[in-house]
Amino acid sequence: MAIIFHYNKTLLFSLFSLLFFFTFSSSHIIPKFPSPLIRPEQQLNSASVKNKLYRTKFYTQILDHFNYNPQSYQTFQQRYLINDTYWGGAKKKAPIFVYTGNEGNIEWFTQNTGFMFEKAPYFNALLVFIEHRFYGKSMPFGGNKKVAYANSSTLGYLSSTQALADYATLIIDLKNNLSATDSPVVVFGGSYGGMLAAWFRMKYSHVAIGALASSAPILHFMDLVSPYVFTNIVTQDFRSESEHCYNVIKGSWKLIEETAKKHGGLELLKKSFRICNNNDIGAGALEGWLQTAWIYTAMTDYPTPSNFLSPMPAYPVKKMCEAIDNSVTENNHTLGKLYAAANIYYNYTGTAKCFDLYDNSDPHDLGGWQWQACTEMIMPLDSNNKESIFPESEWSYKDRSSYCKFEYNVVPRPNWITSEFGGHDIEIVLKRSASNIIFFNGLRDPWSGGGVLKNISKSIVALVEKEGAHHVDLRFSTKEDPKWLKDVRRQEVKIIESWISQYHQDLATII
Amino acid sequence: MAIIFHYNKTLLFSLFSLLFFFTFSSSHIIPKFPSPLIRPEQQLNSASVKNKLYRTKFYTQILDHFNYNPQSYQTFQQRYLINDTYWGGAKKKAPIFVYTGNEGNIEWFTQNTGFMFEKAPYFNALLVFIEHRFYGKSMPFGGNKKVAYANSSTLGYLSSTQALADYATLIIDLKNNLSATDSPVVVFGGSYGGMLAAWFRMKYSHVAIGALASSAPILHFMDLVSPYVFTNIVTQDFRSESEHCYNVIKGSWKLIEETAKKHGGLELLKKSFRICNNNDIGAGALEGWLQTAWIYTAMTDYPTPSNFLSPMPAYPVKKMCEAIDNSVTENNHTLGKLYAAANIYYNYTGTAKCFDLYDNSDPHDLGGWQWQACTEMIMPLDSNNKESIFPESEWSYKDRSSYCKFEYNVVPRPNWITSEFGGHDIEIVLKRSASNIIFFNGLRDPWSGGGVLKNISKSIVALVEKEGAHHVDLRFSTKEDPKWLKDVRRQEVKIIESWISQYHQDLATII
Repeated sequence: MAIIFHYNKTLLFSLFSLLFFFTFSSSHIIPKFPSPLIRPEQQLNSASVKNKLYRTKFYTQILDHFNYNPQSYQTFQQRYLINDTYWGGAKKKAPIFVYTGNEGNIEWFTQNTGFMFEKAPYFNALLVFIEHRFYGKSMPFGGNKKVAYANSSTLGYLSSTQALADYATLIIDLKNNLSATDSPVVVFGGSYGGMLAAWFRMKYSHVAIGALASSAPILHFMDLVSPYVFTNIVTQDFRSESEHCYNVIKGSWKLIEETAKKHGGLELLKKSFRICNNNDIGAGALEGWLQTAWIYTAMTDYPTPSNFLSPMPAYPVKKMCEAIDNSVTENNHTLGKLYAAANIYYNYTGTAKCFDLYDNSDPHDLGGWQWQACTEMIMPLDSNNKESIFPESEWSYKDRSSYCKFEYNVVPRPNWITSEFGGHDIEIVLKRSASNIIFFNGLRDPWSGGGVLKNISKSIVALVEKEGAHHVDLRFSTKEDPKWLKDVRRQEVKIIESWISQYHQDLATII
Repeated sequence: MAIIFHYNKTLLFSLFSLLFFFTFSSSHIIPKFPSPLIRPEQQLNSASVKNKLYRTKFYTQILDHFNYNPQSYQTFQQRYLINDTYWGGAKKKAPIFVYTGNEGNIEWFTQNTGFMFEKAPYFNALLVFIEHRFYGKSMPFGGNKKVAYANSSTLGYLSSTQALADYATLIIDLKNNLSATDSPVVVFGGSYGGMLAAWFRMKYSHVAIGALASSAPILHFMDLVSPYVFTNIVTQDFRSESEHCYNVIKGSWKLIEETAKKHGGLELLKKSFRICNNNDIGAGALEGWLQTAWIYTAMTDYPTPSNFLSPMPAYPVKKMCEAIDNSVTENNHTLGKLYAAANIYYNYTGTAKCFDLYDNSDPHDLGGWQWQACTEMIMPLDSNNKESIFPESEWSYKDRSSYCKFEYNVVPRPNWITSEFGGHDIEIVLKRSASNIIFFNGLRDPWSGGGVLKNISKSIVALVEKEGAHHVDLRFSTKEDPKWLKDVRRQEVKIIESWISQYHQDLATII
């Protein structure tokens, strides 16, 4: 990914929105499994455990649902994972829970969506996790990622509307094959997958009776929310831990830039942050590396130890601020404190020898998001200078557009998402024309700023948790889960139960 | 259109569904306006009247909304007609009534949708009639129909989903330009335009607050209704006038085929039906010509004289049966009676000298429907032999598919429409996830068999009229309109009024 070489502050912030989990500056060496710090749900990568969780299947999917030119008829193999251990079966019209896959390898999301596995026995539900086209193994153009990602002629078929139509056709076909046309489908998703789940319920209400859309920032588009919400929430997350912590991070950008300018400063920075020897270090790259740590930690500020983006302790933002506030460093130097905090995100297992600022590894196969962010996912993110923990920056559609022209020779369509899915006056629109959606948001999650935070109707419900982070509700439960998290999941179960029961009642009226 | 040369009974019936108004065997010389028989609403083609009705505008529309490959960025000029004479304006949040154009020249549909013009003053509504891509003047590929219709590579972009997205983007842009984002939009449509209106409300509920879907057979798809409903209704229409009339038409196919086999029989048929001299006549072509007359007359069996498909008297089915039952012909010959009946459809103005069975003229530019019927609009139509007024036939998806392969080298996607828009269990689906749709159907209209005929909820209402024909409610009113028709329109106005009032109340809660 060439962008790390075109780094500057403005661009950096315009890139915030490029990925929910942007990988271009995540630059660290994380040991692979197993590790004593890794939780049970994090050990799922071992083949035997995976085999117990799901079977892998493929569906022959059409390349283009909306056109009929010859190339639209091309097909590809779309991966989905299935678990029928708990399913009550077609005869009982037992439900089907479908995860609408996000911008990455579906196995990763599946392994981080323990909620569905844990609730399947209660609901006698069939579990299906569908991979998003152009991610993981679901690669058009003969399964060849190199070809699929070659240029805009092939990447052009990577879009949210195509993905939703994929889900609809796959689900319908699967139900037919299982003779389970009367089994109600509930869709689940987190983050972009949550947006897809919500949109799926809105657009394909004949396929899914309801959606649990967790941390789905469906309002994070042009003119709908302030571009500052995201960075404001990260700021608030750290500031809520300690004013000193906030001030140290806020002041760090100037410190790093001034240090970099000094004779021997770059070497000092390199040493302070244990940057690998082969890295050409610059202030911008280092700042990006730190910002990634603060942002991802804010997003995944879970109340229990976790390993979603990286192995981390419970309440990692608090831990970071403790490191900044309390760590004893050589000469009490600020750089050392910042390093100690960043270390919690990049090296909680303590095995990293050095950090590569330019690490391009993409273990979860998230790279396609950059294309989506260059076409339809124009989610403005900005940092204002007064209060923000981040350097001042100005969101610029022009910058995004230039980048996309440069990288893909493509022009974004910034108004498409709101044209296709709405967003303006969402409360009065959905109240009259939709139902059965749960929007979960945790307010410590910076993406919650673009979420639906108020109940819209009796059946379009916003579950909002002050202490929650990015789709925490969907994670495997642990013994240490706080009460509010248990309550959220209990509410979700109750609501989903009511949808299913209503569906069965409705169905009885027409049979 | 090559299909008229591949005529056989089975194929004929499989072609019933090729067009709402299939043109391939409508073969008559109709005088152009003015004519003493033509009603006021039918004189709209004169330039001065048209100028009063609407102004013509064009919108730069994107070729492909759902993909981002280079060709998807091509644009074309989409025509729309606008009338702001009665509009209350953006400040008053006065409504915008949008007709979602069908498979033809938008001027034709506009001129046959007097309801919108007549009700605009009451609602202070802006009127907009949008032409469907690939029809009329809304031709992609540089406005060049020859290129646009050249083959499946260009025709591929003709699809219902693209059309709906066209409507959404055009309406949103228009509202922005008029600073009228708060003006509620109500969509209207008849026949395929009615299907689009209903689907638009379902899929773009953030753009339109409600839809009047008149004679919209959204259920006329694979596995949803019996393929016999259409021909059964035509049968019933004629049979309800007289058993003798029904028996004569029902017996005519055998009569024609036997006559054709006799020495001199083809000449006799040609003479009896005043077929033009240059026509090579065969029994199949003649039967198709007659079936067109019976079907179109059943569809447009309006209670007042009209000129939608052809100039016709009030209650033309009754008139046809009167011709069959009572007309005095040479030797009381059945062929003469059939001719007299067909004459009501093909030559009510009495000026035709002869009839061209192979007339390919397409004055309303409906030809693109054939492509749509070869890709997504797979609406099975069949005739069973027991009761049907038509020859026995068997609906065959295989025949359709072969034809489409032959004609366009394209494979239909018979399940796409129900995958994308639903249809199964529609009553329980829409009850929970949609609102504000009026489905009007007249039971004399053969397309009503695929319509929504029962109320689904308080706000998804079926208006069903025993005496009604194809979107009769949308036509200009006349002094002779029967009470039931006036009542239907009154109900429609009342319901639309309630949507607008509800919208304004909703809006007030968030401002």
